[in-house]
Parts: sequence; C-alpha cells; structure tokens
Amino acid sequence: MQDAAAGSIAGSGRPRYAYLGPPGTFTEAALHQVASPDTADFLPRGDVVAAVDAVRTGDADFAVVPIENSVEGGVSATLDTLAAGGGLVVVGEALVPISFVLAALPGTRLSDVRRISTHPHAWAQCRRSVAALTPGAVHVPATSTAAAAARLAEVAAERAGVHEAAEALGFDAVLVAPHSARSYGLEVLAADVGDNPSAVTRFVVVGRPGRIPPRTGADKTTLMVQLPDNEAGALLTMLEQFATRGVNLSRIESRPIGDELGRYAFSIDAEGHLEDERVAATLMGLHRVCPLVLFLGSYPRADGARTQVHRGTSDAEFAAARGWVEGLRGDGAPA
Amino acid sequence: MQDAAAGSIAGSGRPRYAYLGPPGTFTEAALHQVASPDTADFLPRGDVVAAVDAVRTGDADFAVVPIENSVEGGVSATLDTLAAGGGLVVVGEALVPISFVLAALPGTRLSDVRRISTHPHAWAQCRRSVAALTPGAVHVPATSTAAAAARLAEVAAERAGVHEAAEALGFDAVLVAPHSARSYGLEVLAADVGDNPSAVTRFVVVGRPGRIPPRTGADKTTLMVQLPDNEAGALLTMLEQFATRGVNLSRIESRPIGDELGRYAFSIDAEGHLEDERVAATLMGLHRVCPLVLFLGSYPRADGARTQVHRGTSDAEFAAARGWVEGLRGDGAPA
Amino acid sequence: MQDAAAGSIAGSGRPRYAYLGPPGTFTEAALHQVASPDTADFLPRGDVVAAVDAVRTGDADFAVVPIENSVEGGVSATLDTLAAGGGLVVVGEALVPISFVLAALPGTRLSDVRRISTHPHAWAQCRRSVAALTPGAVHVPATSTAAAAARLAEVAAERAGVHEAAEALGFDAVLVAPHSARSYGLEVLAADVGDNPSAVTRFVVVGRPGRIPPRTGADKTTLMVQLPDNEAGALLTMLEQFATRGVNLSRIESRPIGDELGRYAFSIDAEGHLEDERVAATLMGLHRVCPLVLFLGSYPRADGARTQVHRGTSDAEFAAARGWVEGLRGDGAPA
Amino acid sequence: MQDAAAGSIAGSGRPRYAYLGPPGTFTEAALHQVASPDTADFLPRGDVVAAVDAVRTGDADFAVVPIENSVEGGVSATLDTLAAGGGLVVVGEALVPISFVLAALPGTRLSDVRRISTHPHAWAQCRRSVAALTPGAVHVPATSTAAAAARLAEVAAERAGVHEAAEALGFDAVLVAPHSARSYGLEVLAADVGDNPSAVTRFVVVGRPGRIPPRTGADKTTLMVQLPDNEAGALLTMLEQFATRGVNLSRIESRPIGDELGRYAFSIDAEGHLEDERVAATLMGLHRVCPLVLFLGSYPRADGARTQVHRGTSDAEFAAARGWVEGLRGDGAPA
Repeated sequence: MQDAAAGSIAGSGRPRYAYLGPPGTFTEAALHQVASPDTADFLPRGDVVAAVDAVRTGDADFAVVPIENSVEGGVSATLDTLAAGGGLVVVGEALVPISFVLAALPGTRLSDVRRISTHPHAWAQCRRSVAALTPGAVHVPATSTAAAAARLAEVAAERAGVHEAAEALGFDAVLVAPHSARSYGLEVLAADVGDNPSAVTRFVVVGRPGRIPPRTGADKTTLMVQLPDNEAGALLTMLEQFATRGVNLSRIESRPIGDELGRYAFSIDAEGHLEDERVAATLMGLHRVCPLVLFLGSYPRADGARTQVHRGTSDAEFAAARGWVEGLRGDGAPA
Repeated sequence: MQDAAAGSIAGSGRPRYAYLGPPGTFTEAALHQVASPDTADFLPRGDVVAAVDAVRTGDADFAVVPIENSVEGGVSATLDTLAAGGGLVVVGEALVPISFVLAALPGTRLSDVRRISTHPHAWAQCRRSVAALTPGAVHVPATSTAAAAARLAEVAAERAGVHEAAEALGFDAVLVAPHSARSYGLEVLAADVGDNPSAVTRFVVVGRPGRIPPRTGADKTTLMVQLPDNEAGALLTMLEQFATRGVNLSRIESRPIGDELGRYAFSIDAEGHLEDERVAATLMGLHRVCPLVLFLGSYPRADGARTQVHRGTSDAEFAAARGWVEGLRGDGAPA
Repeated sequence: MQDAAAGSIAGSGRPRYAYLGPPGTFTEAALHQVASPDTADFLPRGDVVAAVDAVRTGDADFAVVPIENSVEGGVSATLDTLAAGGGLVVVGEALVPISFVLAALPGTRLSDVRRISTHPHAWAQCRRSVAALTPGAVHVPATSTAAAAARLAEVAAERAGVHEAAEALGFDAVLVAPHSARSYGLEVLAADVGDNPSAVTRFVVVGRPGRIPPRTGADKTTLMVQLPDNEAGALLTMLEQFATRGVNLSRIESRPIGDELGRYAFSIDAEGHLEDERVAATLMGLHRVCPLVLFLGSYPRADGARTQVHRGTSDAEFAAARGWVEGLRGDGAPA
Repeated sequence: MQDAAAGSIAGSGRPRYAYLGPPGTFTEAALHQVASPDTADFLPRGDVVAAVDAVRTGDADFAVVPIENSVEGGVSATLDTLAAGGGLVVVGEALVPISFVLAALPGTRLSDVRRISTHPHAWAQCRRSVAALTPGAVHVPATSTAAAAARLAEVAAERAGVHEAAEALGFDAVLVAPHSARSYGLEVLAADVGDNPSAVTRFVVVGRPGRIPPRTGADKTTLMVQLPDNEAGALLTMLEQFATRGVNLSRIESRPIGDELGRYAFSIDAEGHLEDERVAATLMGLHRVCPLVLFLGSYPRADGARTQVHRGTSDAEFAAARGWVEGLRGDGAPA
C-alpha cells in the first residue's frame, strides 16, 4: 500500500495525508499503516468531509477516513462524500482493531464519573460495558474520540483542579483508544470497555483519479450505483449483473438518494479489480441498466485474500469467449 | 394509528409513550401525530436506546423513535436495538418534514457564530447552507437538536450575558426545528437552512408483541434477516424469496452482524401485512433459507399508499392455488 | 410398481394394460417389467394415442407407452395426448435398454437388402450403422418396429418365396428388437445395429386419477405448464418457481400450444412427490403465475435414485417455517 | 431472402437447393418462397438428413428443410443434423401455412377408405378430422406427404383398377397438400382436413458457413447449447445469460445429448443478429458458462417483425458502456 501510494505522487515531494484528527484517533492509527510521518505529512482535519475535501482542493494528496466498522456499520459521511462526485477514488484500505479505555484526568475516581464524552460511534460500541461500570452515566457527544481527550487535557492545563475542569467542560471522562489516553496524559479508569472485543474499523485511502493501483489478484473495487426509479425487482436486476459474471460482493449498503424516502443508491465493494475482465464486464452491464454508476476505485485488499475465480469467469475464459465471437463475426461477414 | 395504539392497551389507563427527547425534537413532532398529550403520557428519553428500553422494562407502553431520514439514511441505533431481540415490534409509523433554523440567544449576530451545536444528523443535513452563512463555523455535537437548544436556554438563564453563556457552553448557536427555537426562547438567525428542502424523517412506534395492528391494505412489514455465511449469491437468494411472491421492498439496509467485517444482516421494510398470503409465504421462504429472520411488525403505512398487488399474488390466487393442490392430494390419496 | 398398480384396482379382477403393440415391441418389454401376463391382460394397440384412449374409455385400466428416448428425445404423441386433458395421470415408469437387429426372412442375404421397414424413431437410431452395412438402402416407415416384423412374417406365410413377399410388401428387411426377430421367425442379418449402444427408452404407465402411488422418497412428478403470453422472461419466472423451493428437474421439453408458432407449453418431470412439501409449494407457485398447469402424476422412479433434498427444503423445514408464521399470526392477532 | 441467398454464391452459376422431396411436399412450397426454379436447381431428397448432407458434400449449395410445426413441434431430424456439426448454418427461413386434403385415385369413395398413407406428422395433424370422416381408418406411414401421393399415382399407372392399386400398395388414400393432390392427378375426397386450421410449418434454409446474411433489424439467431452436467439450476443460469442482456427467445427445445437419459442440449432461436451487441455479449456469456455452444446462424425473420430493443440493450448503450469502462482504465493506468 505504502509503495503504491507513494509511487503515485513520485517526484512531487513528500505526500500529504489528510485524516480524521486530532492525533490519537483510530484514523491516525490507520494512517500509520499506510504512511510514515518520516516521509509524509500528516494533516489532521475536524471531520471526514473536511479530510476528503482537502484532497479535492489540493491541500492534501490523500485522505484517510473510516468507511465501516464491524459493529456500527457504514460511515455515512464517508460514503456520501465519496458519492457526491468530484471524482475522488479509493486507492487503498487499512484495518484497525478497535479497543477502548475509559479515561479521565488523574485523580478522578470511577465512582465520580457522570458524563462521558466520545464520538457517537464509540459510545454505541461501549454502551453495555459502560452501563455496568458507571450506571447512569450519560453521553456527551464529541467529533472524534481523540477530540474529547484533547479537550479534557487542554482544559485541565488551564484550571486548578479536576472538578473545575469537568465542570467547565460538561464531562468528566472519555472513551478513547489506549494510545490516545497515554498521549494526552489521562488516567485509564477501565481498559477494554468495548462491548465487542473483536471490533475492527476499516479505513480507506482516498486520492485523485489517475492513480489506479495495479492489479494484485487480491483486490477490491468500490462503486456507488443508483437504481432505476419505481421498479420492482430493480435491486435484483442490479445484483444479477454481478452474479452473471461471478463477481462477489464484500459489502453492500443502501444510502438514500436524498430527494425523497424510498429512493436508494447502493454503495458496494466488489471483489476484483477494474483490470479483471469479469469486473469490467460487470461495470458495463451496470452502466447499461442503472441510471448512475460511479467507479470509486480498485485497490489491493488490506487482508491480502486472493479473489476466488469461479468457473467460466477467468480472464482467459473471457478472452476465449471474445475470440470465439470475433471469429464467428469475421468468418461470417456478409458476402 | 392513534386508535390502534390506544386500543392495544385498552383498560390500562393512559398510554405512555417514550420518545427521543427533550421536548422540541422532531421525534416529539412525530409523537404528536400518533397521540395527544391530553390522553397519553409523553416520556422524553435521552437517546433512542433508552426510549426503546423503556418499553422493554415496562416503563412505557410505546416508544417513538426515528428510523430513517430521506437525506441521512437509516438510524443505526434504532435498527440495531430493534434487532437486538427482546421481541419488540413496530406498530405504526409517522412522517415528519424536516426543516431547520439556525438559532441563538437574543442579541447574537450571525457574524459572531463560530461554534454550532446540534445532533450529527442535523449537522450533516445543513452543512452546505451553514458553510455559506457562517464560513469556518465548527460543529459541537449534541444528543438531539432540542438538547442543544435546551442547554443554550438553560445556561443563558444562569449567566449575565450572551458571551458568557456561549463561553461556558462551548457553542454560540444551534440548528433546531423552528418550533423548538420558539419554545426555548431563541432568536432565529436564519430560517430554512437545511440543504434539502424536501427532507423527511420517518419515525416508528414500537410496542410489545401481541399487538399486530389489523390489515388495512396499505401496510408495511419490517424484518431483520441474516444471510447464510460465506455464500456468494446469498443476497440474491434472499431477495428472490420476495420477488417470487411479488412482494416489493420499500427499504433495505445492511447492518453488520457485529462479529467481523463482511458479515451483514439486512433490515427490510416490505409492502404488505403478515395477514397477506404473499407476505406470509415470503416469511416462510425466508425462514427456510436464512439462518435468522426476525419479524419486527406489520402496521399501516403513514402515507396510506395501498399495496400494489401483482398478478398471481392476491390472497384469492394464493387460496385458489392451495385449494387446487389440496384437491390433487385429496382426490389422489394412495389407494 | 407392480404392487402399486395391481393394488390400485384391487377387487376388480385382472388389471388390463393397453400398450403400443403388436407383441414384440419395446413397449411390450416395458410392460413385462410392470405386470405379468399370468395375472394381467395385455391389450396391444396400433399407436400411442389408441393405447392411452383405451384407458380413457375404460377398455383398459392402464396404458404403457414410450415417453422419451435417450437418443431421439420426447415422444410427441405421448406428451400431447397426456396434455390433451381427460385427466389421466402417470402412475409408474419403466426403462428399457434399446438394441436393434437387422432381420429378414430366412434366405435373404445382406447384400440383397434395398428397403428396410421400421418405426421412424428406430430408423433414426440406426441410420449410421445401416448406411455402412447396406449402402443406399432406404427407409419404409412402419407404425412400430414389431409391426414391420409382423407384416413380413405374415406376407411370407402367404407367398411362395422371399422375393415375392418383399415385392408385395415394398421392403425386404426390418429393424427390430432381438426378441421380436426371434418370435416372428426372422433371420438376423446383423446384430447390434443401433448407433448408440447405451440407448434407453423410458416408458410410462398411465392410469385414471385417484390412484397416486404412495411417496417412496425416490419419486418423480410430471407436469405440463403453459407460459403467460408474450412475456419476455416468462420461462425464467416459471423455472424460478422450482429453484426457489429446491426442486430439480429431470426432464423439460417444449411443446407447441398449437395455435401459432412461438407459443409453447413445457412438459416437465420434477424430482419429488406431490406429498413432498417443496413439490406442493412449487405447484402452488406455478398455479399462481402460469395460465395453465396440469398435474400429470407423482410416481416412483424406475431407477430408485432418492431425491436429493437441499438445505431449507425438507418437509421438516417447511413445517417449521409454517409453524413459525402461524405463531406470529396467532400471538399477534389484532387486539 | 432470395437476394441474400443468391448473392452468397455469386459468380458460381445457378444455386442448387436440396429439399425434402419429392415435388409436391410442403417443403417444396417453402423452397418456392426462397428461390425460383427459373434461376436455381431444385434437388429433391428422400429425407431431411439426406437434404442437409447434400450441402455438406457439396452436391447442393443450400438445403430447405422443416424445423418446427405450430402443431407438432420441432422436427428432431433437422435439429439433430444441424447440431451434429459439420458447421452448417441457417441463412434464412420461410413459413408455410399447412392445409391438408384427403385424396385418392379417381373413383374411390370416401366410404371405401380403410388405410391412409402420409407422413406421421401429417397424420398427427389430421387425426381428429379423419376419425370423423373415415371411422376406423388406419395410418400407413410414408416418408413424406408427397411420397405417398406419388406412390399412389405411380402404382395406379401400372394397374388396371383402383382396387388393385390399393391392394398392391397397402393403402387407398393419402393426406397431402392441395397442390400435391392436383399435380399427382388425385381426386380430393375431403378438403381442409387438418385439425388446426391455422397450422404453420417453419422451414430453414441451410448453407455452409461464411455466409452470414447482413443484419436487417428483424433477425433471428439459432444456437445449440449444452448444459453443464448434474447441476441444479444449470438451465436457469443459461437462460439468465439471455435475460441479463435483454435478448428474447422465440423458440427453445430440449434435445437429448444421446449418451444417457436426463442429459439435454437446448436448441434455441434468439431474437437478433450476431452483429447486435447484445447477441454477441450473450454468446460470450454462454461460451463461458456452457460446455458447448454451437452458433447455427443469424438470418432475417420470415415475418419481418423487428426486434424489440429493451432499455439498456441497444448497440449505442453497449458502446457507451464499453467506452466508459475503457475511459476508466485508460485514465487510471497504474502510475
């Protein structure tokens, strides 16, 4: 991943990566899988849309943003900003195991915790554990897990004591990544407070088009597909375009088109690469039957799992089929 | 809707409705479509899960919570808490047109606005308008739109001036429903700041099982369906259960099962009622081919649109088909 | 088979079997698999329609007729007469390996053979071998293989010599079953003259309704299904009724409906028995979506191969699904 | 049709047409639609296979043979000989309305008719009418309708009287086309004796490859497709190749592969021409998923009905889809 991304801006100096910051977010952890701060610039942004827009405006070469979580599902802001056009594409992905700690300013006792700040997705993933640890504690939303930690540390520095800081902030503890608690000098009141110990978040690296990473045999292709209006069976027809060519889906999510209830587009990750014949054929089929198809990138899978090729769908079989039909046409041109 | 719900707790006094509060939320507006405060108790709760749990624990008879928005899509907390079991069912729905105002304490000028508090979904729906009105303003998340307004009003009451209040709160304006701005005594700095003027949110009324509202001919049935593991084409197989019986879907959303990436359940609204033969047949088909199917209720549609019945899928045609096969079996019993 | 058929007319004396005769046909060989001349009456008929009509008129209890050959395909007369109504059903089947000899009156030399009489299906199955043995010999059609042999024997008895007989008949050799050549006193000029040594013909035992043989777990069900007019995809829709319930087809043949080109009905053998839930459900589905479905019988397979039951399609799974939906309806009756 | 066929052997003298003879058959009537005896040689052959083989050996340029009848269905000999390889293709078709007369030597009375000779397909199409006219009369098979008439005329010329001729022949009347009765000097005992007054037979013109007639927009493509062994749903998978590209079928017939019962190939007429993008794409799909696909020709429809082009399946839409994907690949080549 690192090579492909770095290579794509070869000759242009240090690559710049916008990401959902501040430092200490899970997104930053994902970014470390993709690039090193020694050779790239890391540019924290306040939300997903701002991070992606930095690529659109040219302030960054890439953006690293969460796209789905194994517990909370798709990240709507990411799905929608990619779909909103402007032609950005996904050029890579990274997987980050998610674990949370309940942390506070040193001196805080667990029994004192009444109000807990964190990103809503984090809150959703710790709800049961937190209810057991701190019965009755309420959620104070933050724009990111690290933002809550940063704010706690910052206010503490300005005030005399823990209680004053909490009073000023409106919360007295945070749910954050373990490394984030450390880097902001917070005290861990409880570790491993995520309800699902195997939670994983998947992040994508977004770049400008013209940079499709080469096919590796273990690739994904991300699409946004709009269905024809008011057609019973339209979803089935769309999915058959994949099935007929033996292309598996690894993710599918509906997103409202936005104009009225009941009209959806689908965000899809398909197994394979634009350079695979079966993926190209599927895209052509979708283009014919759907009012809108956005190609949002082909890129190597983070888990390296090679695409299973079903009988009749290898490149060789596609080429043989095309050769056969071309032979029929060529041999049989009208006299 | 009101009658059905009221009827279902006949004899037990005033029905109690938990909802995503505080007063002034769009959810409260939905609740007013469903019940009147004159004859029912309205119980505000801090989040969707708490509102639904109030029904589980018996503190409320019903909960009114948002399930999808025409711009932002599905409300994960609602979808997931319904799917989490405990056997609650949807018994009704309501549609609320969504419009936002940017509001602040009297005396605040638009040009002063730097930090805006609201629910993340509301922020997402006003992003472009707000960026134009108050360039550079940032989002301060709140648990609901009305909660932000309430907190602003509450702090203002305690402090000498607007600036002090804003300083104490960490924000100086809110994005809320117009009626909410009025009821909290805020001043509207800009009206109609939603990016999509036709935005609608759909709410569901959740109750305990044993209360399926009667069939009206304009009904919906809500399901959660898990797919077989690791099967290419499993989604297609599932959707064919609907298509074969002529049952249309009005909503489909994937939700992670939670154990690992790439495993999904689907939250589905199908047109029709459990008492419709084609819906019952579809449910039986799903039960056979899917590892898990949750029936989450049949209830009248808020828009009153009657279900289109395709050829061969009316109750009469199902009954005729069954009668024919029973006749074959009966006439032809082994000698 | 023998028991079921005998049992089905219990108490009414010896069962009577019409068949495509005369004695010596492959159909008679099939009949010997089904019944014994010691306990049943064998009634030869001149063609398939006459044999089946004998059941319709009550002159016979059963008819044994060919339905398909592994080389020549479906027997149109049988498919069409069954489909023509009158409510006959298939109650059993038999498989007969097909082998042919070229036979003539004693004294005939192979090199003398110019004209060969046999049933057109037999001619088609021996064409290549016969062309090699007797180059230039032509076909003289007969209504059955045995009819050709019988006529040869009969005329020989009336005439002085071989040449006179051949002259009178218009042919000098026949293609028949080996036992048929023997029984008519013919000399075998060449054995095993079928082009395909593994040819098999399948015969059905046709009876009046009211006699469905009991389910054995290794059964077939025969249907005739008409498609909706002028509908692209109608065949696909029809086949999906089987696929959705996991019912395999072992034979499918189009037959013209008869009124104009391009309108077809389909003659189908499906694996399973009317008493299987998945078969009954498929029949109900067909009844809803097709303008005409004829049930033409469920009966044990001659080869005894047990029906493969796919996941989710066993009787137990159908019953569980029905029980689940009935529970939902019962628990959830309108208050 | 005439031009295309004539053009295809331009410069080689008079085209030679083999056909199912003798003169007077319905096939000859079809041939008159395709070519004129003034400019082409008409070569009668004794059966369908011989007519087609004449093209294979070079004795003829084309063969005209029946392929399906609106009452009797497919003509197995034609379907099988085309499928047997040798690379012949269909280059045209003709439709002939079928009507029959019952004819005999002058002086024969209807009440005398005991034995009627004709082709088995003709017998099947007149069975009910003939049973009413001449109760108890039996069928004497002939290789064609005209062959029966010819034989009657020929023997009559050699014998003293009607009865002697009938005695010698073994039949006393024939079922033939009206013009055939006339040309053989027979007397019509009853006209319009076909059971279905709108019966039509479809004939194909078979030629050597290298002669695909140009696309007209009202074309058919004939295929023979073998299914994968032992695969439930294989037929569905095959049909989806057509449906996914919006290609309608006008005829589909199963034919045994010949090695054992239960293994079928399908003879298919699809709407459209090899030069249509959707047909070419369908052929490629079939080539990938089926073990054997034979292209048996694209040619103009006899009825001139233009192919209905469904949304998303025009050549322009295929070209646009291909251009879009090529653009994605080209713009996005690996850096």
